[in-house]
Amino acid sequence: MRRMDPAHQPYAQRPVPAPQRPLARVAQVRVAGLLAQAEVVVNGDAPWDLQVHDERLYSQTLLRGSLGFGEAYMDGWWDCADLPELFCRLVRARLGARVSPLVTAAFSLDSHLFNHQGKRRAFEIGQYHYDIGNDLYTAMLDRRMIYSCAYWGSRAQTLDEAQEAKLELIGHKLDLRPGMAVLDIGCGWGGTAQYLAERFGVTVVGVTVSAEQARLASERCRGLPVEIRLQDYRRVRGVFDRVLSVGMFEHVGYRNYQTFMEVARRCLVPDGLLLLQTIGANVAYSGRDAWIERYVFPNSVLPSPRLLSAAIEGHFVLEDWQNFGADYERTLRCWHANIEGAWEHLGDCYPERFRRMWRYYLLSCAGTFRARVNQLWQLVLSPAGVGGGYCPRR
Amino acid sequence: MRRMDPAHQPYAQRPVPAPQRPLARVAQVRVAGLLAQAEVVVNGDAPWDLQVHDERLYSQTLLRGSLGFGEAYMDGWWDCADLPELFCRLVRARLGARVSPLVTAAFSLDSHLFNHQGKRRAFEIGQYHYDIGNDLYTAMLDRRMIYSCAYWGSRAQTLDEAQEAKLELIGHKLDLRPGMAVLDIGCGWGGTAQYLAERFGVTVVGVTVSAEQARLASERCRGLPVEIRLQDYRRVRGVFDRVLSVGMFEHVGYRNYQTFMEVARRCLVPDGLLLLQTIGANVAYSGRDAWIERYVFPNSVLPSPRLLSAAIEGHFVLEDWQNFGADYERTLRCWHANIEGAWEHLGDCYPERFRRMWRYYLLSCAGTFRARVNQLWQLVLSPAGVGGGYCPRR
Repeated sequence: MRRMDPAHQPYAQRPVPAPQRPLARVAQVRVAGLLAQAEVVVNGDAPWDLQVHDERLYSQTLLRGSLGFGEAYMDGWWDCADLPELFCRLVRARLGARVSPLVTAAFSLDSHLFNHQGKRRAFEIGQYHYDIGNDLYTAMLDRRMIYSCAYWGSRAQTLDEAQEAKLELIGHKLDLRPGMAVLDIGCGWGGTAQYLAERFGVTVVGVTVSAEQARLASERCRGLPVEIRLQDYRRVRGVFDRVLSVGMFEHVGYRNYQTFMEVARRCLVPDGLLLLQTIGANVAYSGRDAWIERYVFPNSVLPSPRLLSAAIEGHFVLEDWQNFGADYERTLRCWHANIEGAWEHLGDCYPERFRRMWRYYLLSCAGTFRARVNQLWQLVLSPAGVGGGYCPRR
Repeated sequence: MRRMDPAHQPYAQRPVPAPQRPLARVAQVRVAGLLAQAEVVVNGDAPWDLQVHDERLYSQTLLRGSLGFGEAYMDGWWDCADLPELFCRLVRARLGARVSPLVTAAFSLDSHLFNHQGKRRAFEIGQYHYDIGNDLYTAMLDRRMIYSCAYWGSRAQTLDEAQEAKLELIGHKLDLRPGMAVLDIGCGWGGTAQYLAERFGVTVVGVTVSAEQARLASERCRGLPVEIRLQDYRRVRGVFDRVLSVGMFEHVGYRNYQTFMEVARRCLVPDGLLLLQTIGANVAYSGRDAWIERYVFPNSVLPSPRLLSAAIEGHFVLEDWQNFGADYERTLRCWHANIEGAWEHLGDCYPERFRRMWRYYLLSCAGTFRARVNQLWQLVLSPAGVGGGYCPRR
């Protein structure tokens, strides 16, 4: 487990000068005006209102958009009792594009011009995000360490139950039967591979680009017909009865969607099934945020229905497309509550600014799902259409 | 009811010269070779084999592709005991593009260049296909006269039950409650409007471009809070709680998908829902057939996932996308069986060549669904995402 060294981490605090007095005044009026459009009041008494502790918040937000706003939170310049509701209001009012249109435009252009998810760079996200420390994820996640949206449905009461309901859903949608060979692209800490092997009697190959995940996943699946590989999914060879990819497509990148589908198709028998779970955006090239990019998921982008459909065409028949995005708000709130509950001992390893950064990450994302600006999709795809039709059990 | 006058109908037989002997021989060898790729044998003993009665079939098929093949069937030059299975094999082997690549390419270009579904031309399909004769559709369809794919699910045994199951599915997916205002774009003979008004207590405005449909729909819905209009959907004004469109999007045309979504959005309250049921193709610009174009649905094209998604983006949030395309094969077989059973009295109004044309239409389409080359999609869309998430009851 790596310990956090503030001097070498991007969330280490840096000095920010206070702007000149007249400029500060202009910034304050402008930011308060923008917030008012989302019915958010500075130092108001609603749970989603901002409590401002340091007025440098305003100039940093105007100058650097969502990056400045998020860093101001990390630095303790402002607080909010209900961050998800605040973000729900901000994204619904589409303030992001108005505050920093240049940042938004630059990101969009950048994704078009460069392949940030080439094979050489694929391992970056593994090292950056997923190798932060297994202790953090152990404290945050359910007992199987599933780091993707849970399925609350009508029955699940706890995070453990909701993650198990998701795994059941996947198993049934894939019509898993004993002895089948399954490929799990982006296997995380192996919780899904373990569950499917134990519950449905299948054999699993799981690939991940995170060394920490691969190590723990291999431990978790010891004694089961599960093979965990530290490998880029594009290098997988062999043919499987089923392929699943849960919470990994967000790292694939627009320019590699076709490749992803080609690889998945190549790895499937003709009458196989692919289950793809991913976060989605309502509109193409819209799901990128400068703060998330810098502090949480570098090089990650969200597909839209059009971009995803375009990649599917010619490779797969679309059998089913379910959206349970609202379940992600509850999942993220659970993760946040778990982190807060475990802070007493996590606090020895991570600085306070990290705690605020992580809270901001979890709860601002929860807000985007609450606003229905982000979605959670589960698609079932088949190479040539299931004979007699596909009837998912949800 | 209009009577069929063979001299003025496109399915009236015209003289086709027999080709010169050596040419005929070449055509026969070539067509037999193509059929063999789909494991179809000329004069073989499998139910899906062709029984050839007139050898002009070969040259007409080579020269005019699917148009020649279909007309040869109408003219009685060949027969087949299991037309759906024959077509399933032909489309899976992708023979269409190989026989008549020029026809396919010309169609594709034509759809790109021209708007065949402009407001002026919208009524053509009404007059051409839907006004043929209510007696034909009365004999063919279920008792509610629903002319779109039924939902067989696990319980329905008869066509009446399966169509009712589809209407129940629609009502529940739309979360209909008493007093809601519903717009039905492409209301057919009013069976859906009638059912929803009676079963869920909603008021309905239904629009159609077929005068015959409008007349019968108004009769069918007499005494209910249902208004039927002979109107292009683009001219609808007003705001509704729910919008549905079942089996009409196939006539909308690529160039009008955006307009369709704009109109549907304009007609919906902010927290409303749109249910869209349409036949779909797996790949963009692929679902057009010269024979279907000429004899059944002029100016009709099928959306692909990409084309449909592109139209949705910016207008709606994709809440759910169900595919029950395999149910269309069974629906079409039922329609065919009903026509055959009623031919004793239908035969007085329609010539034998019409009967063969209609059979070819129903059973060749059944084959494309059997092959899973065509799909049946039911999408639920919301203007800005249902608060707390959308959970369809299927």
